[in-house]
Amino acid sequence: VTEATERWLRDVETLRAFPQRYSRAIDARDIEAVGELFDPDGVVDGALGTLPVPQYLGGLRAAPRSFATSMHVLGEPLIEFEPGTDVATMDTYALVYQLDRVAEPSGDVLLGIRYLDDLVRINGAWKIHHRRAVMLWTR
Amino acid sequence: VTEATERWLRDVETLRAFPQRYSRAIDARDIEAVGELFDPDGVVDGALGTLPVPQYLGGLRAAPRSFATSMHVLGEPLIEFEPGTDVATMDTYALVYQLDRVAEPSGDVLLGIRYLDDLVRINGAWKIHHRRAVMLWTR
Amino acid sequence: VTEATERWLRDVETLRAFPQRYSRAIDARDIEAVGELFDPDGVVDGALGTLPVPQYLGGLRAAPRSFATSMHVLGEPLIEFEPGTDVATMDTYALVYQLDRVAEPSGDVLLGIRYLDDLVRINGAWKIHHRRAVMLWTR
Repeated sequence: VTEATERWLRDVETLRAFPQRYSRAIDARDIEAVGELFDPDGVVDGALGTLPVPQYLGGLRAAPRSFATSMHVLGEPLIEFEPGTDVATMDTYALVYQLDRVAEPSGDVLLGIRYLDDLVRINGAWKIHHRRAVMLWTR
Repeated sequence: VTEATERWLRDVETLRAFPQRYSRAIDARDIEAVGELFDPDGVVDGALGTLPVPQYLGGLRAAPRSFATSMHVLGEPLIEFEPGTDVATMDTYALVYQLDRVAEPSGDVLLGIRYLDDLVRINGAWKIHHRRAVMLWTR
Repeated sequence: VTEATERWLRDVETLRAFPQRYSRAIDARDIEAVGELFDPDGVVDGALGTLPVPQYLGGLRAAPRSFATSMHVLGEPLIEFEPGTDVATMDTYALVYQLDRVAEPSGDVLLGIRYLDDLVRINGAWKIHHRRAVMLWTR
């Protein structure tokens, strides 16, 4: 029992780091670091539609920079993860600041987003297998 | 010692989920899910005054919808919890977005709130026994 | 192994509380409480320049109040900490609300800040040995 609980607690710490790793990677436009978080056989359902992970990452790489600065403030995830399993879900609230639009009219955008992630352990490493990014509001 | 620490660590995870469970429940106006977080013999001291939990929940159920959208962005709680006890306190900063006011004048409100919670373990389940919601500022 | 993991998990909880302890202390202008978080032999690299901790704290004590209200909303830190060591790094995103400027013109400021902290365990207690506060943007 003790070993199972310890593993669960360590896994929870690993899972909890995902939103923060994602925010640093995406704000730095480090698409390789974003890709390390995802299962290459996974799917991302977001602003660009429903895309297999490789296409999602390709879309990020190809996207022109619309704003000079972005800051993804992701909160504490609500983690659902049963001990002894290799699957977990996370539900993360985010405030995304998109600042200094490059094109005219210049300006800022603030987005309220909810990330609903299914994670799986693959060869010992947690990966996001399915992400649904729900745009709640924009200002 | 090991068992006590493990129990403490697991309890901390349970406690940490409370702010996130609250935010999802209140944003969905799922008052039953809000109620599951509170001790029915507890008290909530907030915008509606100092109310026993059943009246607090009744007030939430009866309240007209003032804004079309709300997003309660609750941060990581500062948890005070001694191992081996059944009481804990949590201090949680929150940014609450109330968007698209239904009545005129239309508009948005942003609130800075601090939730000061006393929690107790009742029949093995943590519940908020006393909540003080301090409105720090509004814009 | 079990004992090392347990110590690591407890240390992570201690580390995770730092951003929240800092925000409560600085928002209350409780400079003594801020000082308890820092190694007196450490350095803070921020808005006031690169300062040894005692001078940093002195600067905070001497600073006139520019805004009536401040709220430091610090997110979940990204923690790097190897089991069995006495050093850790934390990377924390923050939204800092500075409200009701005392001087004219009155107004509010919102800052996006990233705190990059090196922590060390000194005589059994974790302290911030080096902080770099990076101002990402202001509005």
